[in-house]
Amino acid sequence: MNFLSDNAYGAAPEILAALAAANSGAVPPYGEDSVTARLTTRFSELFEHNVVVFPVATGTAANALALATLSPPHGAIFCHEESHVAVDECGATELLSGGARLALLHGANAKLAPETINAALAIYRRGVHGHAPAAISITQATEFGTVYTPSEIAALADIARRESMALHMDGARFANAIAHLGCSPADATWKAGVDVLSFGATKNGALCADTVVFFNKDLVLDFEYRRKRTGHLISKMRFVSAQLEAYLEEDLWLKHARRANSLAQKLARALAQIADLEIAAPVESNEVFVRMPKAVLSQLREAGAEFYEWTAARPDTTLIRLVVSFLTPEEHVERFVRIARGQR
Amino acid sequence: MNFLSDNAYGAAPEILAALAAANSGAVPPYGEDSVTARLTTRFSELFEHNVVVFPVATGTAANALALATLSPPHGAIFCHEESHVAVDECGATELLSGGARLALLHGANAKLAPETINAALAIYRRGVHGHAPAAISITQATEFGTVYTPSEIAALADIARRESMALHMDGARFANAIAHLGCSPADATWKAGVDVLSFGATKNGALCADTVVFFNKDLVLDFEYRRKRTGHLISKMRFVSAQLEAYLEEDLWLKHARRANSLAQKLARALAQIADLEIAAPVESNEVFVRMPKAVLSQLREAGAEFYEWTAARPDTTLIRLVVSFLTPEEHVERFVRIARGQR
Amino acid sequence: MNFLSDNAYGAAPEILAALAAANSGAVPPYGEDSVTARLTTRFSELFEHNVVVFPVATGTAANALALATLSPPHGAIFCHEESHVAVDECGATELLSGGARLALLHGANAKLAPETINAALAIYRRGVHGHAPAAISITQATEFGTVYTPSEIAALADIARRESMALHMDGARFANAIAHLGCSPADATWKAGVDVLSFGATKNGALCADTVVFFNKDLVLDFEYRRKRTGHLISKMRFVSAQLEAYLEEDLWLKHARRANSLAQKLARALAQIADLEIAAPVESNEVFVRMPKAVLSQLREAGAEFYEWTAARPDTTLIRLVVSFLTPEEHVERFVRIARGQR
Amino acid sequence: MNFLSDNAYGAAPEILAALAAANSGAVPPYGEDSVTARLTTRFSELFEHNVVVFPVATGTAANALALATLSPPHGAIFCHEESHVAVDECGATELLSGGARLALLHGANAKLAPETINAALAIYRRGVHGHAPAAISITQATEFGTVYTPSEIAALADIARRESMALHMDGARFANAIAHLGCSPADATWKAGVDVLSFGATKNGALCADTVVFFNKDLVLDFEYRRKRTGHLISKMRFVSAQLEAYLEEDLWLKHARRANSLAQKLARALAQIADLEIAAPVESNEVFVRMPKAVLSQLREAGAEFYEWTAARPDTTLIRLVVSFLTPEEHVERFVRIARGQR
Repeated sequence: MNFLSDNAYGAAPEILAALAAANSGAVPPYGEDSVTARLTTRFSELFEHNVVVFPVATGTAANALALATLSPPHGAIFCHEESHVAVDECGATELLSGGARLALLHGANAKLAPETINAALAIYRRGVHGHAPAAISITQATEFGTVYTPSEIAALADIARRESMALHMDGARFANAIAHLGCSPADATWKAGVDVLSFGATKNGALCADTVVFFNKDLVLDFEYRRKRTGHLISKMRFVSAQLEAYLEEDLWLKHARRANSLAQKLARALAQIADLEIAAPVESNEVFVRMPKAVLSQLREAGAEFYEWTAARPDTTLIRLVVSFLTPEEHVERFVRIARGQR
Repeated sequence: MNFLSDNAYGAAPEILAALAAANSGAVPPYGEDSVTARLTTRFSELFEHNVVVFPVATGTAANALALATLSPPHGAIFCHEESHVAVDECGATELLSGGARLALLHGANAKLAPETINAALAIYRRGVHGHAPAAISITQATEFGTVYTPSEIAALADIARRESMALHMDGARFANAIAHLGCSPADATWKAGVDVLSFGATKNGALCADTVVFFNKDLVLDFEYRRKRTGHLISKMRFVSAQLEAYLEEDLWLKHARRANSLAQKLARALAQIADLEIAAPVESNEVFVRMPKAVLSQLREAGAEFYEWTAARPDTTLIRLVVSFLTPEEHVERFVRIARGQR
Repeated sequence: MNFLSDNAYGAAPEILAALAAANSGAVPPYGEDSVTARLTTRFSELFEHNVVVFPVATGTAANALALATLSPPHGAIFCHEESHVAVDECGATELLSGGARLALLHGANAKLAPETINAALAIYRRGVHGHAPAAISITQATEFGTVYTPSEIAALADIARRESMALHMDGARFANAIAHLGCSPADATWKAGVDVLSFGATKNGALCADTVVFFNKDLVLDFEYRRKRTGHLISKMRFVSAQLEAYLEEDLWLKHARRANSLAQKLARALAQIADLEIAAPVESNEVFVRMPKAVLSQLREAGAEFYEWTAARPDTTLIRLVVSFLTPEEHVERFVRIARGQR
Repeated sequence: MNFLSDNAYGAAPEILAALAAANSGAVPPYGEDSVTARLTTRFSELFEHNVVVFPVATGTAANALALATLSPPHGAIFCHEESHVAVDECGATELLSGGARLALLHGANAKLAPETINAALAIYRRGVHGHAPAAISITQATEFGTVYTPSEIAALADIARRESMALHMDGARFANAIAHLGCSPADATWKAGVDVLSFGATKNGALCADTVVFFNKDLVLDFEYRRKRTGHLISKMRFVSAQLEAYLEEDLWLKHARRANSLAQKLARALAQIADLEIAAPVESNEVFVRMPKAVLSQLREAGAEFYEWTAARPDTTLIRLVVSFLTPEEHVERFVRIARGQR
């Protein structure tokens, strides 16, 4: 019963098969191969827009390289205080940007609101004495499993445009967000004003494949140099690109995300009916946050359930995070619920 | 007829099979899995020494993270002016170290000699006004396909010890060097004084898997933080570790290297017998450097041969590099020779 | 009527005279001169402790070089969200440290409290995924003109020791704090657990001279390299050192601070008696924060008073900062009060 | 008899007097004062061109900030292997640029020649795998006391234009070069194609004042942020600006340089007539390089002469550097010569 992370689960068989299919003959290295070339077309179709894509091996690389490209060394990047770029990447963005500031902002359900950005701007508009506001980074789906609607994104994008800032989206769980929204990928990204997307595949089916998607070619700037000099230009790139291609093939990415989201809903609905348990955030993707008495938590641990505990707000209960992967057995969800109910 | 790079070829079937084998169930992410745990044992056996290993996805990451750990931001790292860290990594070491200096040194056949290091030390011992000598980085096999003997390495290590510098080895083609030397991996590394090795697998059979091997635990310092904050801590690490495990299994790495070296020898011997062609460096691994008239070069290009041209030293001839992979068809080697001879 | 900043005022005649006195003959450059050598003795006497001192030209240099020395690139430095290092140095610490995180914390009157640090530690103790807590930086006197007592400092130092963090003090207005506390410089620094002090002289009488004071020699590490490679090793160092020497001579620094503090008290007492005006923070150094109706503010502006407005908390009043320098004419203070009262 | 460095000598009385003159009243800090404002006009007149000037306290700051502004983090900056930026600034440029490469080039008399730049370009034009050529930095006068003619500069500028690189001049001894050339400052800078100049005053009369001069406003970019976040925005800027103003007043800078150059000529002519002594480089500014037997060197040392020894090329003689300052007593020059002759 592993609910630790989507990363705890493995890869989709379709994606493993794509690696084998890509493994024939000699091809130009460093992304000059035909599989990588096809990605541009494939992603442009997906987003109904001419995009520039740069495959990388990790989500942290995608985020930090994107943000380092969008922000000058003296820039401020507004993000939620619970966001992955803020708390789970050990300062990758600060390092790769040459010392940009991640301005950590509050916001209900791990989402940023326009008024929060405006308040931060008042602090960060200090000329040469402070960091210069450079970008807004949002996470879709968020670290609390919530999802920005296209209009919520557009409201942030309006500020970004007004202030000449870029809008970045960390889409490590972009598939789960789209599966929830039911809209087109275009509607939730460039049509709403997103400039650059970290499009994640690793959590949702790949072995090690994410990609940076630029909706605006003018923002690419020196991205390729940055990718190379951080060791993220994979020599046998076809093996990363093939993962991404298979991930999009026949909407595998959405199929996976729908299954995970659906199981998360099932889990949340069942837990919500248990006395003393409280669902702590809207369940809009594949994460469920539950507040529970310590006794229940102990029973779950004893039964072998794996999950992370969030910072405790109240001494008598604990907030836990449950992540459901596209591969999580439905039986594990059911068993988890039974134990939480005090059954066997 | 692709002689561009070992990276142009794909992956070994054994390594692809290992990915499939590793793809079962949920395991702890970020290298806490059992496959990664086994690597420590496996590499310690290989090197007859307790080592600490950190898998990464690229050779540039391995080199730059290792050197950034070994050198302070104000350090000087002595390396050959033709080395990969110097000319093919776009300043990854400069970036990740926080501005260390790669001191580019001369040396026949892309190898560093003790007297060159000593001369450089005279320049770099300037107290706070200049960079502080911090490390020596050698490439094994070198960019010219030559190989350091254990005693040559030991002579450099002696200087490193005397000057309190670390000795790093870029082993992107370590397998080819060991296959040539016929000695144990231990003899060519820690027994000769190497502190840290970038052990490459990608060029010689893996999809994307190299690893940093620390022979001295005291030098590990903050390596793990550095790996994380550059986006090189792979979340589904088991898929990188599985590649490395399969690469070592039943000496697959040496089998590959011996085949590539042997074909390179065959190629070099045949080309050496052709009038007007000159083998420009000792062929000790899987690379052959040939100086040839432009007319011959044109014939080869027309026949579809792919390879890199090195900087021309003389206007009438060209120096080319031919890289033989473990997967290069023997027929391609033979055909290349026929065309170079003026045959069809 | 300039209450903008202590930096708006000039230099003490005693310090200008010291420059002329230091200007004789040829001496070794880069701090190897006798004036600089005397500083070590002079500061060691002042602090009743063997200290290591490094003169620099600016307070930002002192802070950022000190913190970059105390924190690894992946470190977190806890500081108040209103502190100079956080909001007035444009990311100097982030740049010079190689990407450390300034963790911006709340606290009444611009002071950090132990419980705030402990709460932050819970967030920042995440192993390799987050920044590693490395240092606490406090400002003395603070940006709100308040002063930490030795026991308040000691409480923070206890946490620092327990967590193996360093304790840094930004003493740009250290003189004003000591003048207020009436204790010895030793009591308010190393005896209370401070490891490194940015000792400011520029705001309180010098032209351009601050110095980093290490109370613990083991923490100096590579500070000298850092100072040099940021361009802060002044070649004709005697002219910076002479300012610092004159600043300490016959307690000039305290004499200046006492005058400025005293005028600030006078100013605050008078303003406090005016209806609709509110002193917003305890006046413990040379800064007075006053909340006032916009009409009063307009009158002051019209009369030529210069000062900064702080972020407005309430729409109908404005919070302003008044800084009194050792050179501020008493008549200006009196005139400011008269105008605030609605007189001429 | 101090011939160590121009930095060993003090400041001009005119410049000390300017500090006193600037020390009146309250003025806006951080360069918003009227003295600093006048500098723009003054330097624009001097260079017969609208320039943008940024005063800083040290030459290393001027160079590293200028080059970090001109080069992207992945840029290569071509400079002479003996240049101050290369060997005397402890990697300031590498640090402040975020990891740019100083490409160290050979050249007689510490000067770069067009063919050397062209050869380096062949190495550095490697696309994303290597650093991108970004700037050429020359030193005027050079570290060997030689001086580029305007036409020599123009030849380098032609390459810079062709390759879209910037041309930077380290003018720590710019005064000495202009005094030697006898041309206008304009002829030796922007008219010859120089984009940015580090205009030094410290070595030739100031206490701590150099300035970056941009001849092309479009290249200023984020220079002001860079200056601030490295701690080089002096708060009481008027005291740095006043030094620069006085330095230019009534051609004080040229008067100083002419005296120093003239004494260097006198010194060189006298030494050249001594048997066994050899002037090692053309004497075109205030430095004299002399090769001498060790016996002569010992006599000079015993008599108290101070100077630096350069790396010995031949075991039986030593190459020494003699720097003559605007303040060096003529009697010291005469005495030095007498002792070198074997007299008392």
